[in-house]
Amino acid sequence: MQSHIAPVELAKAYRLLNHGPTVLVSASHGGVDNVMAAAWACALDYTPPKLTVVLDKTAKTRELVEKSGVFAIQVPVAAQLRLTYEVGQHSLTDDPDKLRHAGVELFRAEGVDVPLVAGCAAWLVCRLVPEPHNQQAYDLFIGEVTSAWADTRVFRDGHWHFESAPQELRSLHYIAGGQFYAIGESLNALEQK
Amino acid sequence: MQSHIAPVELAKAYRLLNHGPTVLVSASHGGVDNVMAAAWACALDYTPPKLTVVLDKTAKTRELVEKSGVFAIQVPVAAQLRLTYEVGQHSLTDDPDKLRHAGVELFRAEGVDVPLVAGCAAWLVCRLVPEPHNQQAYDLFIGEVTSAWADTRVFRDGHWHFESAPQELRSLHYIAGGQFYAIGESLNALEQK
Repeated sequence: MQSHIAPVELAKAYRLLNHGPTVLVSASHGGVDNVMAAAWACALDYTPPKLTVVLDKTAKTRELVEKSGVFAIQVPVAAQLRLTYEVGQHSLTDDPDKLRHAGVELFRAEGVDVPLVAGCAAWLVCRLVPEPHNQQAYDLFIGEVTSAWADTRVFRDGHWHFESAPQELRSLHYIAGGQFYAIGESLNALEQK
Repeated sequence: MQSHIAPVELAKAYRLLNHGPTVLVSASHGGVDNVMAAAWACALDYTPPKLTVVLDKTAKTRELVEKSGVFAIQVPVAAQLRLTYEVGQHSLTDDPDKLRHAGVELFRAEGVDVPLVAGCAAWLVCRLVPEPHNQQAYDLFIGEVTSAWADTRVFRDGHWHFESAPQELRSLHYIAGGQFYAIGESLNALEQK
């Protein structure tokens, strides 16, 4: 693992996605690693933590997820703006060297055979919960989070700390046409009059 | 309808949710209106636009959605921070006057019998796509968006314009314990070197 990375307690793992970031989805099968971007990922349950992610039928990563039954969801940051856009635009089918072209550096956590993208703010390794009807009719996949890590510079003690971290560690929230928003100011409803 | 509100083309409706805001869910049945907050809502398809939302079995709004088959998803803004937190914390079952206590003002669009929350940045009216297994096993509901509107001060021509709109129109992204983030800076991947 890299420096600054610490495990996240599974009961708090939903918080890594609760604010709706665009994510990177990674998977591996038969010696092929791939990474794609997905704006349509969402927490689904607390304990055990589950999440949903929409994977189009044209996505090579989807095939790797279906074959291996394991995937990772990670939260890319502002410093990875171009990388996030690139892995969302290009398919491994068309460009076998897609990951290198997008500047993706992969690493693996001990005991987990899923490629993880270096430089993200958080990583959630998931076991696919097979739901063939959802997968076929809606391209909707359900994962149960089996382990999670975060960059302690921006997520620690169960909370995001974007406001005190470097700007380049802000999460990304995609709209369309290359345009994203970074996450912004912290607001506390209990402190508002 | 209120001033500043204009219809959003259905093909662009996914963009209202693409950046992962916390939403308000509203529904009505048998003369009972209700509104709840949900951080777990997500786009699911482009055309026709569909979305998912997680509605807990304890939520009164869920019962109204199941009985009426119609609901609205709306994007609350920073000015509604306290309101958003309050409708997420309290149940109509415990406080029959919940909406008034939270300061919710409802209106209705012509021809649509769903209560809409005044002051939001966007509204998506949905027809429930019944999926009993998802609803029972995962509390996961699918809606097909049948009409959408946005506040033109912050969403127009198919794009969000948070960067040129008043701060109080920023979308909200919930974490936990009353803490939200407002959406932040616009970043364009095509302009980054």
